[in-house]
Amino acid sequence: MQIIAPRWLIPIEPRAQVLTNHAIIVDRDTIIQIMPLTSARSHYPAAQEIQLPEHALLPGFINTHTHSAMSLLRGYADDLALMTWLNKHIWPAETAHVSDDFVCDGTTLAIMEMIAGGTTCSNDMYFEHSAVARAAVSSGFRMGIGCSILEFPTPYASDADSYIKKALNSRSEFSGEPLVHFTLAPHAPYTVSDQTFSKVITLADEFDLGLHCHIHETQDEITNSLKQYGVRPLERLAALGFLGSNLVAAHMVHTSDPEIALLAKYGVSIAHNPASNLKLASGIARVHAMQQAGINVGIGTDGAASNNKIDLLAEMRLAALLAKAEASDAHAIPAWQALEMATINGAKAMRLDDKIGSIKAGKQADLIAIDLSAAHTQPLYDPLSQIVYAADRSQVSHVWIAGRCVYQEGQHFSLHARETLNRARRWQQRISSKTKETE
Amino acid sequence: MQIIAPRWLIPIEPRAQVLTNHAIIVDRDTIIQIMPLTSARSHYPAAQEIQLPEHALLPGFINTHTHSAMSLLRGYADDLALMTWLNKHIWPAETAHVSDDFVCDGTTLAIMEMIAGGTTCSNDMYFEHSAVARAAVSSGFRMGIGCSILEFPTPYASDADSYIKKALNSRSEFSGEPLVHFTLAPHAPYTVSDQTFSKVITLADEFDLGLHCHIHETQDEITNSLKQYGVRPLERLAALGFLGSNLVAAHMVHTSDPEIALLAKYGVSIAHNPASNLKLASGIARVHAMQQAGINVGIGTDGAASNNKIDLLAEMRLAALLAKAEASDAHAIPAWQALEMATINGAKAMRLDDKIGSIKAGKQADLIAIDLSAAHTQPLYDPLSQIVYAADRSQVSHVWIAGRCVYQEGQHFSLHARETLNRARRWQQRISSKTKETE
Repeated sequence: MQIIAPRWLIPIEPRAQVLTNHAIIVDRDTIIQIMPLTSARSHYPAAQEIQLPEHALLPGFINTHTHSAMSLLRGYADDLALMTWLNKHIWPAETAHVSDDFVCDGTTLAIMEMIAGGTTCSNDMYFEHSAVARAAVSSGFRMGIGCSILEFPTPYASDADSYIKKALNSRSEFSGEPLVHFTLAPHAPYTVSDQTFSKVITLADEFDLGLHCHIHETQDEITNSLKQYGVRPLERLAALGFLGSNLVAAHMVHTSDPEIALLAKYGVSIAHNPASNLKLASGIARVHAMQQAGINVGIGTDGAASNNKIDLLAEMRLAALLAKAEASDAHAIPAWQALEMATINGAKAMRLDDKIGSIKAGKQADLIAIDLSAAHTQPLYDPLSQIVYAADRSQVSHVWIAGRCVYQEGQHFSLHARETLNRARRWQQRISSKTKETE
Repeated sequence: MQIIAPRWLIPIEPRAQVLTNHAIIVDRDTIIQIMPLTSARSHYPAAQEIQLPEHALLPGFINTHTHSAMSLLRGYADDLALMTWLNKHIWPAETAHVSDDFVCDGTTLAIMEMIAGGTTCSNDMYFEHSAVARAAVSSGFRMGIGCSILEFPTPYASDADSYIKKALNSRSEFSGEPLVHFTLAPHAPYTVSDQTFSKVITLADEFDLGLHCHIHETQDEITNSLKQYGVRPLERLAALGFLGSNLVAAHMVHTSDPEIALLAKYGVSIAHNPASNLKLASGIARVHAMQQAGINVGIGTDGAASNNKIDLLAEMRLAALLAKAEASDAHAIPAWQALEMATINGAKAMRLDDKIGSIKAGKQADLIAIDLSAAHTQPLYDPLSQIVYAADRSQVSHVWIAGRCVYQEGQHFSLHARETLNRARRWQQRISSKTKETE
């Protein structure tokens, strides 16, 4: 039993609340109570007390869309548009290198970065699902593992059916693991056929699986769909029955008003990836309009190869800043709402909001502490503003996942930091030399 | 005599270059040579060698537009549009609190943040110019001190003539200080009369002073100018003779093609403030078009009250990302160009490019080292990409200004960190209690 006593307790639910002189009681993996600190001490005299005198305590951040293993391709190809970047650089590198080892090592590196930055859960999408799961489980990290499904062959699988089969196999293999679950992730409307979408829908219904798909990331995607199918991708997916409350639509950069209404009607969640959308010149999503329509919008970093950070604090700040200019409204996405996007909204998107996303009795103890004593977060008038607009991830001092302290003051306790970095460096050498050979 | 031997030497000039196995020789405040490390050791056997085995060495960042003292109002009023934010929150707080002490303490806090984040020089604009100068000089920080000039009275001065007089007095007072110089900073077209602009132009000519002014920050500014003067602000300033190569135009969010041509023709430098422009919903400046027109564009953070970071790495990354979406071109502002904006372009804007902004024999030793060994900057294919897109300011390990090491691994050597923080906290208490009284 532990008492965690921060200077500021930010439970996220109820909305925009900041409690002082309060503590939470954690029993093993679960938050069992939130109460005034003095009461906590008298009710639980035997509990260990963790004092956080300059810190805000909040639920761990949730990264609603990422490709963790791509951390090994961080900075490999920059300043390029999506299709050039994919076709000429990323896909060839992946074809040459992606393997069980690559994915396990890359995912572990990304988890190391995420944990140190206060992210306790991610919604992944990649190949080699068992390697992803192994990395997450062995690092004590919570993850929704999106199993990529494509029509075309990769070294991982030969066709859509084979991707699907591997997805279901990985799911069975890790069915007893409490921190991971599997989702079906048809890559995008332009890489997946109607027939495959239909199969995916059937299987998702059958096994109650989440769905995860890149949708309306670029204008080109929409233009090509109009040529090929006569309709925009979202309309096609709606007709196929793909839209529902179990779907996380990543990006959704380009949306008309009727499309926003359609997404709201079906309860689709959006993974907003502001940095990646800017970097690939995809555009700026209409997040303020989506929120006003009642759509659940979480925040994703996308993979490190197109960001190049996996830093929810940076991403949340960018989401809050960008929404104001996009909507021409400085009130759009205020600090409290950006924090919701990075926590409870991500949990809702992943259908984990009964377990995580806020500090609430009965929820899992996925918690982070942020030390706000640094010069760049002083003076401090409002901890919500300070966290969203001023804090850096280097101020994340403590991270707990399911009650386990996985990180404190630069030290990782659930993964081997030096070994993870050594492996990343070995991959860099291999990828760099292979690239030179083929040039 | 010192040999600084980094893993990667990024001189900025020549463009996009990364040198390995090279070192620089620093003699007192000056870079005297760049040469291969082995030659450096044999030519200067008595020199002290500073080894930076995992680090990039580059010129210090230059913050082309900020209001340092406003660090004391960080997070005081967020999620508001410019004129509401100014009229209802910032200006009343400034009227109540701005004093010599406030400015000296706030400027020192901002300098502490800037130095720790690798910024070695800033282009300031505020009141109480002597207090600003005192803070900069005592902190060993390089600064262009923009003396605000307004028509309306503040506690600092009663009318435009009195602001101007105080500016010239402060300039005389600090004329022997090598790290600071003074510029005239008529606040904005909407707060300064034609007559005052004319006086400012005359004085700038007479004393060869730089100029610094907020221009075209919001659409409202332009609309109101059209009503009041019948022309857009830039046209009015051009007619007054205010545009020239000694002018730093801060913001320039809204520009037509002819206006970009006009700015290029007169050699005006732009201080691009991407975060502040988003946060106040002012808009997104057309930086890619400006660069293509040959305009010199530097990067500014604006004050901490509208950002809320004074972090050139964050600002540079945002500038590079935002330019791609704004121009619908993923090639816009690649990493090397973002680095130029944050260094040599800032130096040009401040007319200090003979002294700082690149690593070049004869220039001042304003240098920073960034440790790229962290998980989130590994693997490393390209140090330029890694610095711009992936690095955090917490990785800035060493900072030298005019050859003096002012910061290393979390320790400040030119200012008293604890005292600076204590003062910031006292201001917070005073400002918070005063605000409560008046509510």
